Amino acid sequence: MRIALLGGTGDIGQGLALRFAHDTDHEVLIGSRDPEKARDAVEGYADELESRDVEANIKGFDNEMAADRADVVILSVPPYYAGDTVEAVEDVLDSETILVTPAVGMQGDEDGLHYHPPGTGSVTELVAERAPDEVPVVGAFHNLAADALSDLDNDLDLDTLLVANDDDAKETVRNLSNEIDGLRALDVGPLANAAEVESVTPLVINIAKYNEELHDVGVKFH
Amino acid sequence: MRIALLGGTGDIGQGLALRFAHDTDHEVLIGSRDPEKARDAVEGYADELESRDVEANIKGFDNEMAADRADVVILSVPPYYAGDTVEAVEDVLDSETILVTPAVGMQGDEDGLHYHPPGTGSVTELVAERAPDEVPVVGAFHNLAADALSDLDNDLDLDTLLVANDDDAKETVRNLSNEIDGLRALDVGPLANAAEVESVTPLVINIAKYNEELHDVGVKFH
Repeated sequence: MRIALLGGTGDIGQGLALRFAHDTDHEVLIGSRDPEKARDAVEGYADELESRDVEANIKGFDNEMAADRADVVILSVPPYYAGDTVEAVEDVLDSETILVTPAVGMQGDEDGLHYHPPGTGSVTELVAERAPDEVPVVGAFHNLAADALSDLDNDLDLDTLLVANDDDAKETVRNLSNEIDGLRALDVGPLANAAEVESVTPLVINIAKYNEELHDVGVKFH
Repeated sequence: MRIALLGGTGDIGQGLALRFAHDTDHEVLIGSRDPEKARDAVEGYADELESRDVEANIKGFDNEMAADRADVVILSVPPYYAGDTVEAVEDVLDSETILVTPAVGMQGDEDGLHYHPPGTGSVTELVAERAPDEVPVVGAFHNLAADALSDLDNDLDLDTLLVANDDDAKETVRNLSNEIDGLRALDVGPLANAAEVESVTPLVINIAKYNEELHDVGVKFH
């Protein structure tokens, strides 16, 4: 498959790009509003992968070209760009393209980070609302610390939580997730259950803030 | 110490009562609006403990008498009774009594459970608002499956998340929590961070609903 990471030059984009390129045989397409920036990022990712004797199957494009070529499009952009990024690429999305959203709305104060969803109830549902009706949307990868993903020396032992209304799309993303070493995908039902999934992101950041012994905090359910 | 479980005849009360009585040397006081009901529950808990050769240090009272005798008062009541239960016992609470709240507001529909906090932002903050000003309030034990606690054959490997504005009270509850075998307390900062902690409760119930291999789901952060 071809996996596009829109905003793939950012920290969560980098982490997912490196893990997909390192652990799977899928082709990774880095998208950015500026294709030059995407190609620069790809050079860095390829160097990192080649230093580990992994031949990098990874290329840089502008967001629309990356989305156009992909089977799975991951919106690895900040939450306030998620809706606009969907609209910027909507002409190249169709019922065969799975749109994946990991973004979470948060607000910080001196106490920590607080979950701050948009009026739709969650960023995941906002993406579904802004996407063309026929495009299946899956919420995934919300709760993964970017630094934990990007450090390929770090053995993962993490869960990622999936929400979607389209069971086939969810199954595809579940399989993709499980191909990353040390990552396990759990089903949390339909998009309506996204808010509780997204809330874990500020929580794990708060846990890292208040517990010195924990960094880049992730979660396992059992 | 003396630990009172108000509403200690319910499922989370039972779970915490059995674990505290089994794993620690603290005295456990079961409170109920009906003291007869509390004493009946205590008989059942004592039988369970004696079948494991544990001498049960556990007694039943009405809620106010239990709270009056206790150093730590755990509000193991449904969320919609939490505020009223605080007010029913407020005359016997003081700055030396730590009030612990594990309740979470949720609403269910066909998709699953959804986090449904009161206007204060969380049940934890509602309890703090309804309690006398000098009483330290700690949010804890929100995310523990009652059945997982109550089955003493079940080896726990779980985290519980603490929020409080009073560091000494939080430290006391942290130590108490860590005395339960297989339970680790993590600090999540002040009461203002309670909502993201409480949100984990509907999430773990949804995870159990959608993943056949998981039951009585709990969480570990690392």
